Amino acid sequence: MKALIAGAGVVGSEIGFQCATGGLDVAMFDVSQKALETSRASHVAFAALFQREGRLTHAEASAALSRISYETDIAIAANDADIVSESVTETWAIKEATYRALSAHCPPKTIFTTNTSTMLPSDLAKFTDRPNRFLACHVGRPVWDAKLLEIMPHDGTDPELLDEIRAFARRIGLIPIVLLKEQAGYVSNSIIAPFIIAGLDLVMRGVATYDDVDRLWMFGTKSTYGPIAMVDLMGIQTVYNGLKNLSDTAGKTEFQPILAYLKQEFLDKGKLGVQSGEGFYTYPDPAYGRADFIS
Amino acid sequence: MKALIAGAGVVGSEIGFQCATGGLDVAMFDVSQKALETSRASHVAFAALFQREGRLTHAEASAALSRISYETDIAIAANDADIVSESVTETWAIKEATYRALSAHCPPKTIFTTNTSTMLPSDLAKFTDRPNRFLACHVGRPVWDAKLLEIMPHDGTDPELLDEIRAFARRIGLIPIVLLKEQAGYVSNSIIAPFIIAGLDLVMRGVATYDDVDRLWMFGTKSTYGPIAMVDLMGIQTVYNGLKNLSDTAGKTEFQPILAYLKQEFLDKGKLGVQSGEGFYTYPDPAYGRADFIS
Repeated sequence: MKALIAGAGVVGSEIGFQCATGGLDVAMFDVSQKALETSRASHVAFAALFQREGRLTHAEASAALSRISYETDIAIAANDADIVSESVTETWAIKEATYRALSAHCPPKTIFTTNTSTMLPSDLAKFTDRPNRFLACHVGRPVWDAKLLEIMPHDGTDPELLDEIRAFARRIGLIPIVLLKEQAGYVSNSIIAPFIIAGLDLVMRGVATYDDVDRLWMFGTKSTYGPIAMVDLMGIQTVYNGLKNLSDTAGKTEFQPILAYLKQEFLDKGKLGVQSGEGFYTYPDPAYGRADFIS
Repeated sequence: MKALIAGAGVVGSEIGFQCATGGLDVAMFDVSQKALETSRASHVAFAALFQREGRLTHAEASAALSRISYETDIAIAANDADIVSESVTETWAIKEATYRALSAHCPPKTIFTTNTSTMLPSDLAKFTDRPNRFLACHVGRPVWDAKLLEIMPHDGTDPELLDEIRAFARRIGLIPIVLLKEQAGYVSNSIIAPFIIAGLDLVMRGVATYDDVDRLWMFGTKSTYGPIAMVDLMGIQTVYNGLKNLSDTAGKTEFQPILAYLKQEFLDKGKLGVQSGEGFYTYPDPAYGRADFIS
């Protein structure tokens, strides 16, 4: 089985590596040679990390790397591809150009999937020559820890594809979550967004401290983190961008105070969450990870 | 230290037992002798259960029971009380009558706390002779497993009370969560409500199955249950009543479809969640508790 990964950025590179460790042949395609070089370096780093962590043996890691090719020529990348996973930049122009090119070069058997976070497959299907073999397949980050694949068809997707995609998810070690109809934000963000907004709203309005909000949730539901820690974990810029997108596209003007709060108190101060070492909590060793946090 | 538990219903009885096992003298007060007899029987049952589960020795259980008295005479119940925990019926008339009587009979030192779920302490304070020594202290259920005390002052509450109440929470084995200002629904329901509404909305609209919604949340956040299981665990009638209350008092008309769905598909069919053996899942041994649910 061969996967064509369209877009060799951070997410595409993770998906490619996940497919390769699942035994698939992988063609990483990008119009940028530089992006492909970065992707190749990330794969070498992932292979080393997985060996250190005992997830892969040396032989398995070497085999996975040997199954990945890097192509700026879409005709070569598309040759004999069984499935496309597309993670190119989230603009309509780039999506359209990508699907036009894929349609021109992929054989009829190829299933097209998009990893878009912000668009709906019904709006992208028209750029392809095979809307009935097109649907969204959305991963979490990092792919191998999130281990989820949200599968979202549009009205025109052939329903028989779903079982094939479920099997594909299992094959590359991901748990399939099937959406039965289109939903902006999939299942994940449809629940995560109101959850973190509710927590942020309490903190921003001074109803409770961020750690009391998390403490209550963690203790009350036996969870390993609460809504505020989730913001740090997702990255404050990512949360900001997601809420901004909802605010802009869905007219959610009630998010404006939270957006302003995140910008002024965190982004403008370089506090990005886990990745910058500071968000609501400080990292490594955030308070919510300590045994005494909820005792 | 002596606690007066006003209202010997299910929740009041749990709070009374929690106080008694924490070493406090407890006066259960109710206008109904029958309610007090039921409360006494529940305490005997709790004592037996706690011994079976190894939470209390026989001596500790006996000592706890011996510290609890049952009174229909508020003058006796109020004598030398350090703290009142009020869990009487949630109507304004009954709350007012209770606080008028407590004000007439409690010594000046007594702190008044309400366990109300639906009212704000600022609206109840006027029924007392000591608004500055009045605040809300809200437990989860069952008290000894939820282990949380949400402490919510109103604008007129003496800030110095908060440390005393924090110490009281610790003394009876509960984790204090302090609200810095009034919030309908406390921290807990302010997060739980949008969380379960988001999950129910996806299931009701047929976007995903109830088990895929929970599977995604459980796996994605390493939690022991998701939003739909939480509805079963809280009880579908309780969730319905809570959303109905929000719909009626906060004008949340967007909850109407979810209310109709819960009524038609569950309440009208006697499916109440864990307590009736069936809700979204079947009990005991619901699917989400099995090892293979998220694999």
